[in-house]
Amino acid sequence: MSFINETHDINLKSWVASANQAGTDFPIQNLPFASFRRKGSNEEFRGGVAIGDQVLDLGAVAAANIFDGVAQEAAEAANAQALNEFMGLGKAHWSGLRLALSRALREGSEHQGTLEGALVAQGDVEYALPCHIGDYTDFYTSIYHATAVGSLFRPDNPLLPNYKWVPIGYHGRASSIDVSGQTFPRPKGQTKAPDAEAPSFGPCKRLDYELELGIYLGKGNELGDAISIEDAEDHVFGFCLFNDWSARDLQAWEYQPLGPFLAKNFASTVSPWIVTTEALAPYRTAWHRDENDPQPMSYLESAQNRESGSFDIQMDVLIETDKMRSENVAPSKVSESSFKHSYWTVAQMVTHHTVNGCNFLPGDMLGSGTQSGPEHEEAGSLLELSRGGKESITLSNGEERKFLEDGDKVIMRGWCEADGFNRIGFGSVEGTVLPAK
Amino acid sequence: MSFINETHDINLKSWVASANQAGTDFPIQNLPFASFRRKGSNEEFRGGVAIGDQVLDLGAVAAANIFDGVAQEAAEAANAQALNEFMGLGKAHWSGLRLALSRALREGSEHQGTLEGALVAQGDVEYALPCHIGDYTDFYTSIYHATAVGSLFRPDNPLLPNYKWVPIGYHGRASSIDVSGQTFPRPKGQTKAPDAEAPSFGPCKRLDYELELGIYLGKGNELGDAISIEDAEDHVFGFCLFNDWSARDLQAWEYQPLGPFLAKNFASTVSPWIVTTEALAPYRTAWHRDENDPQPMSYLESAQNRESGSFDIQMDVLIETDKMRSENVAPSKVSESSFKHSYWTVAQMVTHHTVNGCNFLPGDMLGSGTQSGPEHEEAGSLLELSRGGKESITLSNGEERKFLEDGDKVIMRGWCEADGFNRIGFGSVEGTVLPAK
Repeated sequence: MSFINETHDINLKSWVASANQAGTDFPIQNLPFASFRRKGSNEEFRGGVAIGDQVLDLGAVAAANIFDGVAQEAAEAANAQALNEFMGLGKAHWSGLRLALSRALREGSEHQGTLEGALVAQGDVEYALPCHIGDYTDFYTSIYHATAVGSLFRPDNPLLPNYKWVPIGYHGRASSIDVSGQTFPRPKGQTKAPDAEAPSFGPCKRLDYELELGIYLGKGNELGDAISIEDAEDHVFGFCLFNDWSARDLQAWEYQPLGPFLAKNFASTVSPWIVTTEALAPYRTAWHRDENDPQPMSYLESAQNRESGSFDIQMDVLIETDKMRSENVAPSKVSESSFKHSYWTVAQMVTHHTVNGCNFLPGDMLGSGTQSGPEHEEAGSLLELSRGGKESITLSNGEERKFLEDGDKVIMRGWCEADGFNRIGFGSVEGTVLPAK
Repeated sequence: MSFINETHDINLKSWVASANQAGTDFPIQNLPFASFRRKGSNEEFRGGVAIGDQVLDLGAVAAANIFDGVAQEAAEAANAQALNEFMGLGKAHWSGLRLALSRALREGSEHQGTLEGALVAQGDVEYALPCHIGDYTDFYTSIYHATAVGSLFRPDNPLLPNYKWVPIGYHGRASSIDVSGQTFPRPKGQTKAPDAEAPSFGPCKRLDYELELGIYLGKGNELGDAISIEDAEDHVFGFCLFNDWSARDLQAWEYQPLGPFLAKNFASTVSPWIVTTEALAPYRTAWHRDENDPQPMSYLESAQNRESGSFDIQMDVLIETDKMRSENVAPSKVSESSFKHSYWTVAQMVTHHTVNGCNFLPGDMLGSGTQSGPEHEEAGSLLELSRGGKESITLSNGEERKFLEDGDKVIMRGWCEADGFNRIGFGSVEGTVLPAK
């Protein structure tokens, strides 16, 4: 694979011992970025890189001045609460800093002595949003999700005719996106029972999560300039886990004709760590369009996209209830899926989004849409798992759920595995539903 | 009217002579805010206030230190390219600065000598976006527009059942909003003719404008905290003119089920000047809901909203073609309407938007939705004026239009009139369509 370089070598070990332990999300082959500070401190948030169970402080790295050229420039740009400037520098800087970090954190590095003082235990830190998210667009790239949800909202017309031609997306709310640990009151709003004459008002009764990936744009584009599919991934800085909380009963009543609104904008949660596109290179897979389906229009088609446009990012969802916490029981896994099932690739999303001249700014985020797999148990939302609220699912401790209850914490995890390469992980994104105000 | 104060007095005259001329948009009773600098200079953009044909430089006002308390604090906060900090200070500061400016610009003011040096002719300045627009939400508050457009997109089902209950809105793209003078290439994208088997790709053939108001949020709210209808207007800093350019053929193919996307995010244009909510007080009107229609749910209902929740902001649209420019002919007026026809008020939009806990940040913008009036000639888009592209409209120079052609400049103007009060205006918002790239 032409995307692979020395930073992906499975034989690399770090002088940070915890990075070499089996099962860590953050071996030296990963090196994701976040914005962090010591928990409860008044420090400025700044960029950090995960290595084993530690965070490498990029403020300290920049000050140590041990890197050269683009790597040093990138480290200095990443010494900020919001990583937008670093993300906007582009691929040469991202890749240069990654290589410098990989070499500096390897066993035997001359910089070990300098960088030991720049480590902070992950257990001792708190995170901010990794960047200012100017605009957030949510896609709808799982055909399994689109079909399942469509059959609930429009039984006679589940998958609309545009789905197989257009990477369907819509604009989301950026202000209510927060980092893992987000809590929010159960949203209130208008809902209407199918047989009711008029809507009623009150707390959402069908509160749900959506298992998504967030995709961060790095380098932007000028208004009016489309990004070709060949260039698309040069604009993609990296990926996070993303929970697009959804109020299904609000959604059903409000969403026509202009799309979901209050059903989605009360809260959305991202994981702290951005796993870079480069770190994900070993887990790329071929992208395939069923021969009975329409093939993409030429602006959405490229050889590279066919060969390696998909990413096998595995994800799961767990629910931790109040009862589990009080009984000290582990969270219950409710589903598992992979981004490889996506009907459209990240490159296709980026290219489609800009084909009309729409401009990206560094730090803008795309949601992948709910990543449901082909099997029912791979569904990325409770709406699907409970078949529209008709069947409860049973959690590991015997509790049942159709939708989320107050106190429920939803935990999503992500990781990648491939033959000949180390496993890397995304950490987790967590969020908790509070009672309605 | 309890909203009226001394700044609205029709008898006030300014020592800036052009502010006293009949027909000016910017008499001393207006005092709108923008971000400006001398044209072609390298100066920093900073806040300015329109007075007659001049801009009063708020940087110079702040430096002169002639105001006290909240007025001085507000002037200092407004000495910045983006007015978000000033807008976030809240109503006491907005009102305090407005009163101080009104007094300082009046005939006989002791500050005339100081402030004469702080004036720059409007003809000599250029404008930036007045603030960083973090999130932009477009509403759909004209029932005439919703019905007319609905009948074109869904002939069997023009006005959906939720319309009269829910102030329908959806999230828009903030990155592609720019200030008056914006130019953009005709967008390309997928479209599908009703009788075609498959979509095709190319430049938009049904390019349109939408006549809207932009509503700027000042003071924000915390995530999870709803804003009551009684408090809603305390969060509304002011209004601008807003052209929500729309690609109707892209829209028709892409918009289901998640709403308009590429049909809207290639460009959106705001007027430079924000007319404050306080300046608009004399032009408030009663808000009325037809007795045969559903009355608003209680969270959207207040006595004040009934009494004076609407604003009679008059608006018109003109088109200037390449041919008009080459023949030196004036632009052709194509329609005229008023925001007083809106089915929902600004207070209802704000309250609905936050009833689920969604948070506003200072500088966030709401679009009013296309403000079509009850009569066909009051339609706020070409889609409506041309009855879905079936009938051409004839411009003043004999040219015909169903939709916009390359080189067309669209000009929107706004103004308010009321018995016993001076006329105030919004200036204009202009934008020009360039050929597709």
